[in-house]
Amino acid sequence: MASSGDPEYKSSSTPVPGSGTGTGSGGVDYFKFDLILRFLLFAASLVAVVVMVTGNQTEYIPLPRPAKFRYSPAFVYFVAAFSVSGLYGIITTLASLSAIRKPNLKTKLLLQFIFWDALILGITASAAGTAGGVAYLGLKGNNHVDWHKICNIYDKFCRHIGSSVAVGVFGSIVLVLLIWISAHSIHSRVPK
Amino acid sequence: MASSGDPEYKSSSTPVPGSGTGTGSGGVDYFKFDLILRFLLFAASLVAVVVMVTGNQTEYIPLPRPAKFRYSPAFVYFVAAFSVSGLYGIITTLASLSAIRKPNLKTKLLLQFIFWDALILGITASAAGTAGGVAYLGLKGNNHVDWHKICNIYDKFCRHIGSSVAVGVFGSIVLVLLIWISAHSIHSRVPK
Repeated sequence: MASSGDPEYKSSSTPVPGSGTGTGSGGVDYFKFDLILRFLLFAASLVAVVVMVTGNQTEYIPLPRPAKFRYSPAFVYFVAAFSVSGLYGIITTLASLSAIRKPNLKTKLLLQFIFWDALILGITASAAGTAGGVAYLGLKGNNHVDWHKICNIYDKFCRHIGSSVAVGVFGSIVLVLLIWISAHSIHSRVPK
Repeated sequence: MASSGDPEYKSSSTPVPGSGTGTGSGGVDYFKFDLILRFLLFAASLVAVVVMVTGNQTEYIPLPRPAKFRYSPAFVYFVAAFSVSGLYGIITTLASLSAIRKPNLKTKLLLQFIFWDALILGITASAAGTAGGVAYLGLKGNNHVDWHKICNIYDKFCRHIGSSVAVGVFGSIVLVLLIWISAHSIHSRVPK
């Protein structure tokens, strides 16, 4: 019941006969995969936040001018969003773990997961976009409005920002996958 | 069957007995609400794109300097993303309409909707974030890196950008709601 299930789609359309009553189980689920993905979400969020926060760099051009994530509202939003998603990741990892032990909670939990995953996805994707948009300006600048690029000077800072945004995009993709497997698991429990 | 259903959650946990076989129907669904939301997604995407694209403004300071959305990669990404989501909105509005007429397609369609909604949500939320981050820089500038604000000069341009991003955020929220009602509808078909 807690198996990783048959990845082939067709198998899910033949639920165990007679399992339609009781705990609402039957049908495939991917809770072990779910567990791994949720832990990945937590890890990705943690890495994104740590890499972003540790990117401080001071350049002497000619006066000392530091670059810090908190100088940009976009990066502050990014850190806040991925702190939330990291916390969410670790909490739902535990929830997923408990569901593997108590299978009769699973269907209800899957619905809760989709609800929250969709909300967190909206937050993380927009945060990755916001930080990515500003990071791209740092990398390329914009001649039309005289915003000069800064990544030729603040190289370490920009490497941190870029890596952090990449990990953030990865975290958002993990959330999309989580929604997909939860939806598929619930769908497999609907009698045909 | 195509009714808007009882909005109270508890009612969904008592599906019609004996409906567990056959077409997979039974349980609540919100296809009329779904239809309206999908049309709203289309309308919001259309408005976001049109408002963004029509924001061109030329200021003479002292030479003529135009501001156009295509000067910023962030705004180009925004227009591309919301063109896709507008197209997706109108296609799924038609799919939702056909599901109201042919109820036996519904459960499968709900799963497809969640899959695609999650993907499009990732795209639109990140696009709204990207454009929003750059628009905020235009509004406030960033003294730390000498990026001066431009919205005191390009007022009409910035009004268009700001409105467009706001409508884009609204469209992303509609997508979250769509995932929620689809997930809830599928869940209500799982026998308890």
